[in-house]
Amino acid sequence: MTRFVCIVVLQACLNGLTVGPLAAQNNDEGLPAVYRETARAIINAALGDGQAYAMLEELCLQIGPRLSGSPEAAAAVEWSRNKMVEVGLEGVRLQPVMVPHWVRGPVESALVLNSESAGSVQLEVCALGGTIGTPEFGVIGEVIEVQNFEEVKALGKSAQGKIIFYNRALDRTLMTTFKAYGGAVDQRSRGAIEAAKVGAKAVLVRSMTTALDDVPHTGAMRYDDGVEKIPSAAISTIDADFLSRLLKQDQKVRLRLTLSAKTFADAPSANVLGEIRGSEKPEEVIVLGGHLDSWDKGHGAHDDGAGCMQSIEALRLLKSLDLKPKRTIRAVMFMNEENGVRGGLAYADSAGRSSEKHILAIESDRGGFTPRGFSVTAESAQFESIARWAGLLEAMAADKIVPGYGGVDINPLNKQFGVPVMGLVVDAHRYFDYHHSDNDTIDKVNERELELGAAAMAIISYVVAMEGI
Amino acid sequence: MTRFVCIVVLQACLNGLTVGPLAAQNNDEGLPAVYRETARAIINAALGDGQAYAMLEELCLQIGPRLSGSPEAAAAVEWSRNKMVEVGLEGVRLQPVMVPHWVRGPVESALVLNSESAGSVQLEVCALGGTIGTPEFGVIGEVIEVQNFEEVKALGKSAQGKIIFYNRALDRTLMTTFKAYGGAVDQRSRGAIEAAKVGAKAVLVRSMTTALDDVPHTGAMRYDDGVEKIPSAAISTIDADFLSRLLKQDQKVRLRLTLSAKTFADAPSANVLGEIRGSEKPEEVIVLGGHLDSWDKGHGAHDDGAGCMQSIEALRLLKSLDLKPKRTIRAVMFMNEENGVRGGLAYADSAGRSSEKHILAIESDRGGFTPRGFSVTAESAQFESIARWAGLLEAMAADKIVPGYGGVDINPLNKQFGVPVMGLVVDAHRYFDYHHSDNDTIDKVNERELELGAAAMAIISYVVAMEGI
Repeated sequence: MTRFVCIVVLQACLNGLTVGPLAAQNNDEGLPAVYRETARAIINAALGDGQAYAMLEELCLQIGPRLSGSPEAAAAVEWSRNKMVEVGLEGVRLQPVMVPHWVRGPVESALVLNSESAGSVQLEVCALGGTIGTPEFGVIGEVIEVQNFEEVKALGKSAQGKIIFYNRALDRTLMTTFKAYGGAVDQRSRGAIEAAKVGAKAVLVRSMTTALDDVPHTGAMRYDDGVEKIPSAAISTIDADFLSRLLKQDQKVRLRLTLSAKTFADAPSANVLGEIRGSEKPEEVIVLGGHLDSWDKGHGAHDDGAGCMQSIEALRLLKSLDLKPKRTIRAVMFMNEENGVRGGLAYADSAGRSSEKHILAIESDRGGFTPRGFSVTAESAQFESIARWAGLLEAMAADKIVPGYGGVDINPLNKQFGVPVMGLVVDAHRYFDYHHSDNDTIDKVNERELELGAAAMAIISYVVAMEGI
Repeated sequence: MTRFVCIVVLQACLNGLTVGPLAAQNNDEGLPAVYRETARAIINAALGDGQAYAMLEELCLQIGPRLSGSPEAAAAVEWSRNKMVEVGLEGVRLQPVMVPHWVRGPVESALVLNSESAGSVQLEVCALGGTIGTPEFGVIGEVIEVQNFEEVKALGKSAQGKIIFYNRALDRTLMTTFKAYGGAVDQRSRGAIEAAKVGAKAVLVRSMTTALDDVPHTGAMRYDDGVEKIPSAAISTIDADFLSRLLKQDQKVRLRLTLSAKTFADAPSANVLGEIRGSEKPEEVIVLGGHLDSWDKGHGAHDDGAGCMQSIEALRLLKSLDLKPKRTIRAVMFMNEENGVRGGLAYADSAGRSSEKHILAIESDRGGFTPRGFSVTAESAQFESIARWAGLLEAMAADKIVPGYGGVDINPLNKQFGVPVMGLVVDAHRYFDYHHSDNDTIDKVNERELELGAAAMAIISYVVAMEGI
């Protein structure tokens, strides 16, 4: 059976307007009328007068990127608290967490030195999050290109003193960009460890993007105890291709990598919480969240200002429609998803110690694009209980409720306490064009797409708050 | 029943990669294995090595916007012919058509004159396509804001010598932006006629966009025989809101509108055709098309360079996979969709005189966004015959095949000869942000989304070419 969505297509031409037949067939008919009406009211309010975009614009343009431990992250915490109070949430409060404090610093440079074919060329690079810096005048080494860790191991002693250049591209043939990302990101997260094991002195990693572009995309890297820490940087995909061509042409390519990155002592920060208290079972809690921190590039608009503002907006929408959930719905701005998940861990820890019962957590952290549904980690009966509401999301074609991952910040709630968790699934073909780079700015967010995501979160959280799981 | 799409979601965090369960359930299982494999191969080729984006980039950056009758439109015809030859299409040829030749000219200005509250203010306006110009020093009149034609009629004699300002916004609460557009576009297409009937001397029309932005969006307007022709221009939504506020504050607002637009005698132009000839029934034809002309703003990237390049690319994909359709599949670059549909009419006319039998026409003209399915105008049995292939599009979640409008250029084939027609349906929340404005540029197109649309067209046209309707 093909499910129809309401698709109306018109085209204006000089001779006026030609309108095709309307194909409308709602599949929410088995659901209680009151929820169908509520869902429609929420969608109308979101499209007609949603505030997620306006809030995101404020966050992006007044504060900008918000790396954990930075003054901007602190400002974002205050801003979020005020915004929650402003939209009328109850119990607005901070939940303190200590976060890693890594700073990029002013210098990041990779200079090809006197190559035979191209002379000296500056490449577009940026420090990967968590990397150590180089000495003031950089490290110089011959570049060796590899595709994976097996090739690194095979280099053995010949890697000594070299700069390892990881250049395995994301597999663009995969339909889900997250899967393409997942298939390549080991180079970024563990590349320095594996290279250091064979004596390399630094690492360059092809940017984790499906696009061919001229900006480097940062992201978390890590070190292992007992393995030497070496500096690592992302290189833009265009310059990765250039460097690869150069390596095919010239016998040797030498490069100077200079990074001023530095890690300081952990810094105080906080999750930000606000809620609509349940009218009948206030101790049963549904969490809506995104992460307030971002990388220090662009605006952190899609990643994840979008998910944060959608979480607040979902509650604002319910309030604006005077809907009073029986159970508590709480917006949580998680701190430090990008490089530590300290906020997510602290929230779960606190939930474990509380007398509250968390019945569901929903995260939006895949970009503020058109919603397609939710991916749910839950036991079978819980999954079915959630999936029965899919029809309410059909008008916006966001009714694919499938088993799948919830989100990094809410994952500890599931792992430690078995709380069902779910993530907003969106049309993410564009996501890695922007992800962790200077391209992740407010102008890349479409207002309608963002507001619809907030509506989807509002609808699901509201019906679960009324009916339980 | 909920249909599952293959959604895999991963998130990298500092502790490595956490991967959720994979929900994969294909609904193409009832379809012949050979077509399932072909569909997958087409999708892989499109995502891995598609050329629609590269071609669109060339068209946008080397030629730019291509208004009917302009030198750029002529260049686009030549460019398309060469491109079709380059990718190896057969029977590449031009089909001559005479097209309207309207020129915007260098001057378009709307100046608020000495208003009480804001003084003299220049507004963001542009001539609507087809408008007459004003005298060299413009027309000056008092502005009257209206929402619809009833209000214009009600003005009666008080409209004499005034400038009518149509300010009814698109209804943003509608899920389909095309429907919102359809509900407002009468102001643009017939606004000058209705205003002239009550003696107004010019018309300003709120831009047809769901966005609040600072660029005017042009588009076709028309005149009626026997009604005086008066100049008409689009005003940006931000300036429409400003003007509306000013009108609430001040007793009178006077404005000088100056437009240098001019209509010349019809000009020669052409549709561009190229095909893969059918191996068994070459006289049975499936058309894939977009319109090569655009408005003279931006690049005409989404509207409709995208659809044109997807049509050529669909054939290139089939050739690259060495697929040999039994029936002929033809790419048609229609000329003059925007202000005359002369290309679409000429093509249908020629089809009617030909010994060929057109069995299906597919148009892409709703922007190069993520495909969601097709809307089909056909008799019931034909519709079912097409819809049975939906499962082949499920991997890309483009499997919503619904009754609906086909497309402006292929509509004459349906109206005159009963040919089944269908349009590529896409995720169009962003479309009217760009539509007919300086914002419709190549950087607003995502490569993956565009290539997937080409793949969807290739898949459907191929199976129909093999199996008939």
